[in-house]
Amino acid sequence: MAEKKKKNAVRKVSGGVCAPKGFHAAGVHAGFKIKSKKKDLALIYSETMCSAAAAYTTNKVKGATLRVTMDHLADGKAQAVVVNSGYANTLAKDGMEIALRTCELAADALGLAAEDIVVCSTGVIGQPPQIGPFEKYVPKLAGVVKDAISVNTKPKASGAHPENKLAAADARHYGSSAAADAIMTTDTVRKEIAVEFSLGGKACRIGGIAKGSGMINPNMATMLAFITTDADIAPDALHEALKEDINHSFNQISIDGDTSTNDTVVVMANGMAGNRRITKAGRDFAAFADALNTVTVALARMLARDGEGATKLIECRVQGAPTDEIGMRIAKTVIQSDLVKTAIFGSDANWGRILCAVGYTPGAFGTDNVDVTLASRRGRVNVCKASFAVPFDEAKAKAVLGEDEVRILVNLHDGMAEAEAYGCDLTYGYVKINGMYRT
Amino acid sequence: MAEKKKKNAVRKVSGGVCAPKGFHAAGVHAGFKIKSKKKDLALIYSETMCSAAAAYTTNKVKGATLRVTMDHLADGKAQAVVVNSGYANTLAKDGMEIALRTCELAADALGLAAEDIVVCSTGVIGQPPQIGPFEKYVPKLAGVVKDAISVNTKPKASGAHPENKLAAADARHYGSSAAADAIMTTDTVRKEIAVEFSLGGKACRIGGIAKGSGMINPNMATMLAFITTDADIAPDALHEALKEDINHSFNQISIDGDTSTNDTVVVMANGMAGNRRITKAGRDFAAFADALNTVTVALARMLARDGEGATKLIECRVQGAPTDEIGMRIAKTVIQSDLVKTAIFGSDANWGRILCAVGYTPGAFGTDNVDVTLASRRGRVNVCKASFAVPFDEAKAKAVLGEDEVRILVNLHDGMAEAEAYGCDLTYGYVKINGMYRT
Repeated sequence: MAEKKKKNAVRKVSGGVCAPKGFHAAGVHAGFKIKSKKKDLALIYSETMCSAAAAYTTNKVKGATLRVTMDHLADGKAQAVVVNSGYANTLAKDGMEIALRTCELAADALGLAAEDIVVCSTGVIGQPPQIGPFEKYVPKLAGVVKDAISVNTKPKASGAHPENKLAAADARHYGSSAAADAIMTTDTVRKEIAVEFSLGGKACRIGGIAKGSGMINPNMATMLAFITTDADIAPDALHEALKEDINHSFNQISIDGDTSTNDTVVVMANGMAGNRRITKAGRDFAAFADALNTVTVALARMLARDGEGATKLIECRVQGAPTDEIGMRIAKTVIQSDLVKTAIFGSDANWGRILCAVGYTPGAFGTDNVDVTLASRRGRVNVCKASFAVPFDEAKAKAVLGEDEVRILVNLHDGMAEAEAYGCDLTYGYVKINGMYRT
Repeated sequence: MAEKKKKNAVRKVSGGVCAPKGFHAAGVHAGFKIKSKKKDLALIYSETMCSAAAAYTTNKVKGATLRVTMDHLADGKAQAVVVNSGYANTLAKDGMEIALRTCELAADALGLAAEDIVVCSTGVIGQPPQIGPFEKYVPKLAGVVKDAISVNTKPKASGAHPENKLAAADARHYGSSAAADAIMTTDTVRKEIAVEFSLGGKACRIGGIAKGSGMINPNMATMLAFITTDADIAPDALHEALKEDINHSFNQISIDGDTSTNDTVVVMANGMAGNRRITKAGRDFAAFADALNTVTVALARMLARDGEGATKLIECRVQGAPTDEIGMRIAKTVIQSDLVKTAIFGSDANWGRILCAVGYTPGAFGTDNVDVTLASRRGRVNVCKASFAVPFDEAKAKAVLGEDEVRILVNLHDGMAEAEAYGCDLTYGYVKINGMYRT
């Protein structure tokens, strides 16, 4: 991805999923989270019908909500998303009924068809599914959103938000941050971002929220991301952009190598920016893909950094790979190695483990001329040159690895391709969170 | 593998790699281990030339000793093995020279050709390689073995060992246990086993020692196993038996999913049992393979149980799989899941994680009718039936998982194949060992 170009063309703005024109969001505590009063039900709504595309877990075991969403997005259109956290609708006998009923509730409350609702669920599995909280709070969320639209004050450019005009109760529940909070499980920080860029002279925005890598009580790690844009783009082109993008963003994250049953990324484009509709590859498509990548990589990095028990974000950048795919695979293999992850946790420049992980990555590439450099804001230390040990300053290496963002640079000198992957260290906290919660 | 048949035909005996006729072993502290006086150099020697076969790491980065061993075993013959621990000859510029010179030293001391020596190395990488300890102690080990042969008292059946007649200094260094100790790095227990079985009325023995999954200071986990037998079997048949066997034994172990650069399994057969030479598939080949599997699975289980920081051995048994390969892959995927491993550490019957790991295993198999049962010597608890949650007794599940040997039983109801994999729990100890040693 062209870093420099992105910096010129794409700038960050506030507002998350509500930054693009015509999008609204809300979040509320509906009671799925039993041990806290934190928000656990979110709604994202577009004033007009959207092109919509999604990417799903590759796990053969798929949650009920995911199957309903796949069905509802088959026509490439959607107008609202309902997500609950705290209890996952997965592997329960009446899961499909609950998921379908949730869509009906949202459709009724918003005046839409059930087929235009996306539904997601994340949290503990094994509890009996319950429709009650949806029945009570989906209409409530729809009310919050409708109130916001009726006060009709959404001048995004100035940073003002409709909640300024809303009743105090509604204001607490309205907005991207309320929705971002409501999809969190064991996430320790809210994850949202928005960017502005230009398509044929029209200002366009893309916003996103995400949750993931927290699963204290749930039995599976679920990564969810919801992306909104006011760019006008046809469903097929949107699908194409997302499909390509996730290979370089969400699919390049690894917290613990486990692939959830419920992972879902949804992108909705309502066209309200007024740009010329993007229908195929070309300059506008490239500009859109570039901005989308800024949002998804930012969310991916936030997810990796907030991995369970993590104290450090680890980025692996592979250069000199024979193909993109091999580069991506190597970067991800390094990031996934428990030995690398524990070494980084201990600020130990144990580079042999990195070369070892490179070596067991499947694919045809040379391993005789590999350089490895460790880097952070404290500097860079070359630890391996042409696949042989080189003397290095241990104290400096320790300082470099002591930072909370660490980069592992691997140059294969076997081609021109580059790739990145995003992970985190493996810590006592991870073991505690995942071994000790229920017992 | 046919459990019942093995029990009838194969019985355990003492003596490890020295249990088969004509094999001798020794171990000594040569100085590779800097922080202790523990043994760190081992020799295994056969009185006569052996058929020999080996299986190696699939890592593209291969240690120097491994490359020399591959070369020396190309003709299917070997007569001795030299292994050092504490310092790994890997990724060092003069590594090949040192490995070749070590073989020459052993060949000179034992009156063999250098091409008939197998050489292995495990331990810390990145230190400058050193030939000194080999020069001093390889001849010493050869002397211990020659003394043992010259006293000529090796009545295995009675359990007596040559060390009874050796000088006190030699006796400390002679035998399978001395060699097993000398190949350990952070292993907490010695790993050796031997079995006796019959081939056409002749008593045959197979013995083995192994090390692995300990790597506090080394930068890579190295698994080494050395297997000796007095059965008479041609190199090709031996290679075939080993190749098939490791898929069901060593390749089904996972401690942390990292594949070392130096993993090596060597089997040497000297034919001194006097059985009719095995040259191809048939009844004798099957009996040999069965006995070999008893040895390799026993060593594999010892390795898994002694995984770094491990408190529990986890076995996953998959039944009802469409093919052997899919069954093996699923069993290994479950064993490798950090989420499963931490849950077992915490005695948490978090079965959703097991089904999740089954689901993300690559391959064509059904996931709609999966049963999951947790078992140990405290009993069995069915936690998932036909891929849905079933109510279970949490207290009993906790008791079952509280044992130090835990079995996860997965039935796919999608075929007739069965498979097993061996792993361990993921603990604070693992993080400590791998994150904290150097710093």
